[in-house]
Amino acid sequence: MLTIEKTNSALVHLESFKNICGATNVFVDEDVLSAYASDETEDLHFLPDIVVKPGSAEEISEILKICNQYKIPVTPRGAGTGLSGGALPHLGGVLLSVERMNKILLVDERNLQVITEPGVITEVLQDAVKEKGLFYPPDPSSRGSCMIGGNIAENSGGPKAVKYGVVKDYVLNLQVVLPTGEIIWTGANVLKNATGYNLTQLMVGSEGTLGIVTKAVLKLLPLPKYDLLMLVPFSDAEKACAAVSAIFMAGFTPSAMEFMERDALEWVMRFVDNSIVAIEDDIQAHLLIEVDGNDVEVLMKEMEGIATIATGFDCGEILFAEDAQQKAELWKLRRRVGEAVKSHSIYKEEDTVVPRAELPVLLKGVKEIGKKYGFHSVCYGHAGDGNLHVNIIKGDLSDEQWNGSLKEGIREIFFLVKELGGTISGEHGIGLVQKEFLPIVFDDVQLRLMRSIKKIFDPNNILNAGKIFDL
Amino acid sequence: MLTIEKTNSALVHLESFKNICGATNVFVDEDVLSAYASDETEDLHFLPDIVVKPGSAEEISEILKICNQYKIPVTPRGAGTGLSGGALPHLGGVLLSVERMNKILLVDERNLQVITEPGVITEVLQDAVKEKGLFYPPDPSSRGSCMIGGNIAENSGGPKAVKYGVVKDYVLNLQVVLPTGEIIWTGANVLKNATGYNLTQLMVGSEGTLGIVTKAVLKLLPLPKYDLLMLVPFSDAEKACAAVSAIFMAGFTPSAMEFMERDALEWVMRFVDNSIVAIEDDIQAHLLIEVDGNDVEVLMKEMEGIATIATGFDCGEILFAEDAQQKAELWKLRRRVGEAVKSHSIYKEEDTVVPRAELPVLLKGVKEIGKKYGFHSVCYGHAGDGNLHVNIIKGDLSDEQWNGSLKEGIREIFFLVKELGGTISGEHGIGLVQKEFLPIVFDDVQLRLMRSIKKIFDPNNILNAGKIFDL
Repeated sequence: MLTIEKTNSALVHLESFKNICGATNVFVDEDVLSAYASDETEDLHFLPDIVVKPGSAEEISEILKICNQYKIPVTPRGAGTGLSGGALPHLGGVLLSVERMNKILLVDERNLQVITEPGVITEVLQDAVKEKGLFYPPDPSSRGSCMIGGNIAENSGGPKAVKYGVVKDYVLNLQVVLPTGEIIWTGANVLKNATGYNLTQLMVGSEGTLGIVTKAVLKLLPLPKYDLLMLVPFSDAEKACAAVSAIFMAGFTPSAMEFMERDALEWVMRFVDNSIVAIEDDIQAHLLIEVDGNDVEVLMKEMEGIATIATGFDCGEILFAEDAQQKAELWKLRRRVGEAVKSHSIYKEEDTVVPRAELPVLLKGVKEIGKKYGFHSVCYGHAGDGNLHVNIIKGDLSDEQWNGSLKEGIREIFFLVKELGGTISGEHGIGLVQKEFLPIVFDDVQLRLMRSIKKIFDPNNILNAGKIFDL
Repeated sequence: MLTIEKTNSALVHLESFKNICGATNVFVDEDVLSAYASDETEDLHFLPDIVVKPGSAEEISEILKICNQYKIPVTPRGAGTGLSGGALPHLGGVLLSVERMNKILLVDERNLQVITEPGVITEVLQDAVKEKGLFYPPDPSSRGSCMIGGNIAENSGGPKAVKYGVVKDYVLNLQVVLPTGEIIWTGANVLKNATGYNLTQLMVGSEGTLGIVTKAVLKLLPLPKYDLLMLVPFSDAEKACAAVSAIFMAGFTPSAMEFMERDALEWVMRFVDNSIVAIEDDIQAHLLIEVDGNDVEVLMKEMEGIATIATGFDCGEILFAEDAQQKAELWKLRRRVGEAVKSHSIYKEEDTVVPRAELPVLLKGVKEIGKKYGFHSVCYGHAGDGNLHVNIIKGDLSDEQWNGSLKEGIREIFFLVKELGGTISGEHGIGLVQKEFLPIVFDDVQLRLMRSIKKIFDPNNILNAGKIFDL
């Protein structure tokens, strides 16, 4: 076992870090350490010993060389919006924030590419390319605060993924600092590449365990001119899920296909204090469906076609968003539903994903498992991708149940997911809180391959050690 | 150095291989060995010692266990249509053909997925899913003979890649036999996955060096209802290339954007004996442009818009394909241009790829380098992807020039490609014939990572050893 232990030996090198980054970019104050002790995962907190905010790949390289030499744990961090604990400094040591590396270096309109530093906020990047008529589709709910570097680390998705794909589909090339301090580019700035092993795709989704991304070359698309949005209520949540695959089977490819259980929508309307939607008593779930493209008449026809299919699954009265403001309000409900649910109670969020048509089976199974183990869940997510966020609410559960038998319930959900051809994380990553469940979907052979890859990149196991798996 | 040498020790295990695969699926006859001695790469031939045609992952596992134990080289092979020598058994040993594993296991209409064995011919798979209204876009020119397994090994592209992406964008999950004989699945049958390192994407494009794919789960799309095609002549080849990026910058995303130099089109028309196109004397290059979608009027507008842009780059009279037959004839010209050029002379094909807008600079550079080193090149390729196939014609070059100074010319082309942000293979792979050039785009650090990954998967270096790089 190649383990790395909690240590405060980072402090020995304080002056070195100050020399590298500048004294004003290295912190040991309690309040700063505390601000970097948690991300958006449950109620977990771990104090780092030092927070460093380097300004370049070269500075990161120098920091990592010291940490590698002295085996000091390093936790890389973007905005700290992660949901699996990937940015938690659970071993103390150095918390390395890329927040100062926040420049968009080039919007390359000639090639429909953008070159960016990792600390750029996703929405800032989206807006910058939008100004030039271009489109960067990956779009996590936290886009107003999350950063591109973290999105790459987690292979983030979001509502547009159903039509446009996830982060991995937009990353062409990465500059990465390896844990040993070398700075590499993983590929080339091209749309197709059959030149050696795909180090770029190995890096995407590796949760900051293989290297720290310091520049990213991302593919852009032409910005679609129009989009239309509708909210469709269903009296039966499983039927709502069944409608999803029927819509795709009919040949439609919506640009968003989001599912929300009744509780989710009710809670978020209270949370944002907006009752734009009147939910009838018999309604159990909603689909938020968007289409986009360059011809508004074609989109109108698509909306009609989709609505007709939904009718076949006993939907209620459909709300067609009338204008940009109403669209924004509906999207705000969907985007903030996570926060709303989480503000309601202590929770655990499972990021299940299955083949799209298995969604009704998954939802039914989650509810049955909930009954068996006595927990209430609020489900929502990217139904078009088969990606269901299952929020388990602590509610009246005792601490004993919460920390004990509940795990068995979660394991049952994950076994069901696997049986349906799915896996345990669609877009949140494994990080710290899901790693105990990883052996449900990978056996010793795959885990041995992954651990061996980790050792190649990080022989001293300093970088985000203990995330995804233990060595 | 972990080397594996040419050996005929495979013959010692002939009876074991017959027991595993059945005697009728193991060959040592000279004519069979000879038929598997070459692929479509240049004029290269290497006899294997044994050809085995297993019928299942389990049989492949048994074969690999023996070869791993006795360090016998194994070369996996699909249809042998590769252009970088990936399927050449240059070390003798066992040639393992997956051709008998040619079943489409499930066209999953509910989930828009197909599960297939590796020996299915690409066009057969395309047609099978088309019958259900579905679409598998990756579409190499050799689609009538190449196999899905080989396409995955090389991360193949083809003309549709410009709108729909390459093979890697369609592979969701792979069953793989590792060189050590273990059988694994790399991921899950889902559209998004943030669960551990991306072994699926590591396998795609690894050219049969990390494992043998025995089942693939591929994503499908709804089949677009209509497509329109036009052939646009240009009096200046560089202006044709410049038109390409202008079309994308204007917001169009054609489903094909193919470039052919005058020689390429002339030679293929003679080759297939079809003079459908009258090439005016002053024409130097053509673009073959397709749009597809579900609304024919929208497509007509797109064609008009694209034609207007082309006019700005001094194009000649555009040929709009009138019907399915004319489309088929035009596509046949493009698809067979490689064969035509190759039938003309001994050749070397370089699979250069650059950011799209750099294509005119690349083309100009290739011609200048050709003048300097005295070689003629015929260029064609997937211009929308920036992927230019540079066919260097032996013509009157002496063997000395061909095997000597020409290499310097090729190196100059690749240095130019790198300078432009590109790389040395877009879709053909590195295989045997390009590996000496790999250090142009990757330095010792990246190559060390790749070699270390190879050693994890294949500790005895038995599987397609000496492809991509030497260990």
